[in-house]
Amino acid sequence: MNVERISSKKVVVLVEPAGPMNIGLVARSCANFDVAELRLVAPRCNPTEPDALKMAVRGKSLLKKAAEFSTLIDAVADCRGVIATCGRIDHGEIPLEKPEEALPWLLSISGSDPIALVFGREDRGLTNDELLHAQKVITLHSSPEYPSLNLSHAVAVVLHEINRIQSKKNRFPDGYQSGNEPCLPVELDDCMDDAKRLLLDVGFLLEHTANARMTKLRGLLQRASIRSQEVALIRGMLRQIRWAINSHHS
Amino acid sequence: MNVERISSKKVVVLVEPAGPMNIGLVARSCANFDVAELRLVAPRCNPTEPDALKMAVRGKSLLKKAAEFSTLIDAVADCRGVIATCGRIDHGEIPLEKPEEALPWLLSISGSDPIALVFGREDRGLTNDELLHAQKVITLHSSPEYPSLNLSHAVAVVLHEINRIQSKKNRFPDGYQSGNEPCLPVELDDCMDDAKRLLLDVGFLLEHTANARMTKLRGLLQRASIRSQEVALIRGMLRQIRWAINSHHS
Repeated sequence: MNVERISSKKVVVLVEPAGPMNIGLVARSCANFDVAELRLVAPRCNPTEPDALKMAVRGKSLLKKAAEFSTLIDAVADCRGVIATCGRIDHGEIPLEKPEEALPWLLSISGSDPIALVFGREDRGLTNDELLHAQKVITLHSSPEYPSLNLSHAVAVVLHEINRIQSKKNRFPDGYQSGNEPCLPVELDDCMDDAKRLLLDVGFLLEHTANARMTKLRGLLQRASIRSQEVALIRGMLRQIRWAINSHHS
Repeated sequence: MNVERISSKKVVVLVEPAGPMNIGLVARSCANFDVAELRLVAPRCNPTEPDALKMAVRGKSLLKKAAEFSTLIDAVADCRGVIATCGRIDHGEIPLEKPEEALPWLLSISGSDPIALVFGREDRGLTNDELLHAQKVITLHSSPEYPSLNLSHAVAVVLHEINRIQSKKNRFPDGYQSGNEPCLPVELDDCMDDAKRLLLDVGFLLEHTANARMTKLRGLLQRASIRSQEVALIRGMLRQIRWAINSHHS
């Protein structure tokens, strides 16, 4: 039996965390569960104030090294697989999966790019737009009467679940064939920008309805874990359509 | 379809907890995960001081009702099944099991007696004598380099795991929410025909490469289990693009 760990580089991303103690507790959990990096998006407090460092215990060095980003898309720019968490009810049409369904997919992504686990604000989680930067969104097995966990607890539960699954598999069947991995978040983002401009130009989108419709399209492509070569295919289509419009125009 | 939960009465027992905030966080987790009762064995702080109540959030009433006992054996006297947790290395000859191995056993205990999950002191866990009051002892999937979780995190992880296992037992097919079902095969087929004609017209597809590229697009949409309303959205886009090309043309 091959007991070698799959060397997924796990990254935990907190979006606008407000509590220094929570951040410290998350850093400790990162150390407990072999997380490579903690990343913070626009923290609403000083993440290395004494309370945070105290709670981090042996996660202190991870906390001190935590990089800060101004937006979520920047924070996950290099991550091949992104899973976000959602404790809210009003997640629109974004499908929610259970951790044991979605996390094996995350672990199956081969290659050396990091994989990201994204957690939202203490008070209101992630926005639907932020959820759409993830290929999959998970919701935990908490009580329907009171589903909302403390932030650091949600992190600990997800990290434990990923280690549990990893230890069970150790050798995960196959994973993605080379070339079939999901695209990087920024590739999809750029493609969506291209599409939006074209669809505005042809009058399919109006400024005031653009976001709602683009959100549906992005949701569709995220459900498919769209690949780099597919993004390239779509951008090629968009370019050619634009060329056809302009050439007929002139 | 039976959606009723298995009605095990879960009890969380903390042995000599010292941190009011930890106790409050544990009370919150108890509320998050349908725990019936929190029991405290000889707490080393006042469990209802303001810090504890604040962290408990919607677990406050559980915390206020928490019964105190002077020994562990008293605290679990009425419990038919008892599982303790151990993060230490020196557990003597007591076998350690993984949560996913031991917890199904706990849930399989029938009858109306409570089942107990026992957690030790923040600094040194449970003694070996205390571990022996449990039928089974579990250890979590944490890093060998830093296995010791914050107390409240250990509780959250175990409670989530028990609910995960429970939900699997009561599993009923999730199904799709109304409107989110995959479209009918013919809907996607017609949409692909539309797209193919447009892409041939704009010169993105050539007759001899058309099928290969259309196969890729179809594969992408199938992976997303594309829905009827999404097919309609795409067909609307195609119509509008065609209109834009023709109107510029005329």
